[in-house]
Amino acid sequence: MARGAKKIPAKLAKRAKQIQVLLMDVDGTLARGVWLLSRPDGTAVELKAFDPHDGQGLTLARTAGLRTGLITGRESPAVTRRAREMNMEFVYQKQVHKTACYEEILQKAGVTDAAVAYVGDDLPDIPLLKRVGLAVAVGDAAAEVKRIAHFVTKARGGEGAIREAVELILKSQGKWEGMIDKARAAPY
Amino acid sequence: MARGAKKIPAKLAKRAKQIQVLLMDVDGTLARGVWLLSRPDGTAVELKAFDPHDGQGLTLARTAGLRTGLITGRESPAVTRRAREMNMEFVYQKQVHKTACYEEILQKAGVTDAAVAYVGDDLPDIPLLKRVGLAVAVGDAAAEVKRIAHFVTKARGGEGAIREAVELILKSQGKWEGMIDKARAAPY
Amino acid sequence: MARGAKKIPAKLAKRAKQIQVLLMDVDGTLARGVWLLSRPDGTAVELKAFDPHDGQGLTLARTAGLRTGLITGRESPAVTRRAREMNMEFVYQKQVHKTACYEEILQKAGVTDAAVAYVGDDLPDIPLLKRVGLAVAVGDAAAEVKRIAHFVTKARGGEGAIREAVELILKSQGKWEGMIDKARAAPY
Amino acid sequence: MARGAKKIPAKLAKRAKQIQVLLMDVDGTLARGVWLLSRPDGTAVELKAFDPHDGQGLTLARTAGLRTGLITGRESPAVTRRAREMNMEFVYQKQVHKTACYEEILQKAGVTDAAVAYVGDDLPDIPLLKRVGLAVAVGDAAAEVKRIAHFVTKARGGEGAIREAVELILKSQGKWEGMIDKARAAPY
Repeated sequence: MARGAKKIPAKLAKRAKQIQVLLMDVDGTLARGVWLLSRPDGTAVELKAFDPHDGQGLTLARTAGLRTGLITGRESPAVTRRAREMNMEFVYQKQVHKTACYEEILQKAGVTDAAVAYVGDDLPDIPLLKRVGLAVAVGDAAAEVKRIAHFVTKARGGEGAIREAVELILKSQGKWEGMIDKARAAPY
Repeated sequence: MARGAKKIPAKLAKRAKQIQVLLMDVDGTLARGVWLLSRPDGTAVELKAFDPHDGQGLTLARTAGLRTGLITGRESPAVTRRAREMNMEFVYQKQVHKTACYEEILQKAGVTDAAVAYVGDDLPDIPLLKRVGLAVAVGDAAAEVKRIAHFVTKARGGEGAIREAVELILKSQGKWEGMIDKARAAPY
Repeated sequence: MARGAKKIPAKLAKRAKQIQVLLMDVDGTLARGVWLLSRPDGTAVELKAFDPHDGQGLTLARTAGLRTGLITGRESPAVTRRAREMNMEFVYQKQVHKTACYEEILQKAGVTDAAVAYVGDDLPDIPLLKRVGLAVAVGDAAAEVKRIAHFVTKARGGEGAIREAVELILKSQGKWEGMIDKARAAPY
Repeated sequence: MARGAKKIPAKLAKRAKQIQVLLMDVDGTLARGVWLLSRPDGTAVELKAFDPHDGQGLTLARTAGLRTGLITGRESPAVTRRAREMNMEFVYQKQVHKTACYEEILQKAGVTDAAVAYVGDDLPDIPLLKRVGLAVAVGDAAAEVKRIAHFVTKARGGEGAIREAVELILKSQGKWEGMIDKARAAPY
């Protein structure tokens, strides 16, 4: 649900009500762009840009009892740190195919597809988006991804899309208003 | 007040006239985004993006006699350095709850709520925004924050929102025009 | 072809059908901006911002049999790493004049101008854009570049322009739909 | 002159024709934002974002015989490197007041105010903008700066504003068309 938007369509709210696990892609979804910093020794390290509103949303999601996680093809200490800051439970980096991790997460969490939301932006996300109970595409996702999503965020990936997904779920579950007072300052 | 805008509503100007202390959140307000740089040793360090117009505004605010400060949930040397460059008096990092620091600042500054302006963007800022004499929300603040603010900036957080707050205050106090000639080049 | 766009003009499709090699400029085309990080020893190193959609597109291009490469005037480990991640075949950095490398690539690839697409954004790209079978300008290219291009992307350089070029070529060649299922997650 | 724009007003062209020296501010003008990277030892170093079109423009300006330079309140190796890449002649960093350097540059260059163009974005630039023959404000300059400028660029500072200034000058001097063929690839 975009910030300020008031009504969630009944069909979408029904899907969102059942969500217990919120998973997401990283590059183009939770993070904006792929940044590489050259080092004097001729190698390059990765820089990631995250959104504070996404961070606040993910922390509130945890407080509200949602379980969260990420599945990404790349790997970097920056993502590891951000996942830890957000208190994420399922962190799968360096994954070529996302379905295997997804199955593992289902098993660990003890839930079925209907209880999972997944946020993605590009073609490798399609297999998961076709299975989960709530498929979310970021605002600048590939056309093929938007076409199969139940919900497309207003924000672009890495710029608040995750926050919209969190608000959609918590508002549908009637938990958002209660969360506002529980928001803490650190370390989003 | 947005750059170029001419009139400040009387009710808003009345609030702004009384401000002696300008406080603000960091991530999403004074700084844009949360950037993490991976390091070869597997850790990650923080990068912060600030706005030169905000910097110039904060330095002018100090020259004009306003006292300034920040309260944030995260902590990083980048913020420490920026606060020093801006000659800030109240610098509170790594704060889970903002109200305790706020009370301390009131006491140190010897002022009451009415003399304080606070600029924020998200839910943890709400308790302070509800108390201060002048509550400012950045242009891309959460809906809940915008709703209770006395003033919403045109600029997004980290992209000139603080400058607008400074101009609003100094213009309301009749000090802005005199400041223009006092603007120096370093180190905004 | 912009994402979501449906029809490719016949004349443009005819050009795109013949492409076997996709070449591009880096700064302003594959990467956004020129970022320099100061180091404590007084030197500065380069940071590059790439787009995940471009990365996914370039990897799909390789999977579909297109040969890819870049020609740039600057040089940095960040570009070397990104080229390797994208499995690029032709990587020419630190080139003052682009025509010499281009000739070399033609020879190595065993193709003529008509089989090459080139994406660029500024004046030094003009000599190549005038020769290749498919000349692509990024959305924020210089006016002189846009004027001679066969196709101008919707996206700005470094923000998805390369992905549009890849989609234009693969869709014209009837290979795009088949690629969607082959998209993998790493390491775009 | 914005890219693609065709006519330069006669009065503006007259000013631009006389320019021999092109000077500029850095933060908010040649560079976008102020970025600080935290280091493990508790200090922070500076990162600067430059625009490739600006770089190409500045190099062409040099080729066309314009002398170039910058005056800034901050200081960083990143700016030093960029100035060297652009082959700048006048590089003044860490300057609190800009007028002293400006006088020195006039003397070194052996020119008067009428032969100088200056590009700026904020209050400390006003004293110079009031003196030079061609005063240019970037697209997102402070209202006070735009008001006194002879020309306001379409692009924001750090995103192509300098390129517009260069094109305005070289086109007014009838040198732009001849420069297009002289554009080289490195190292913008």
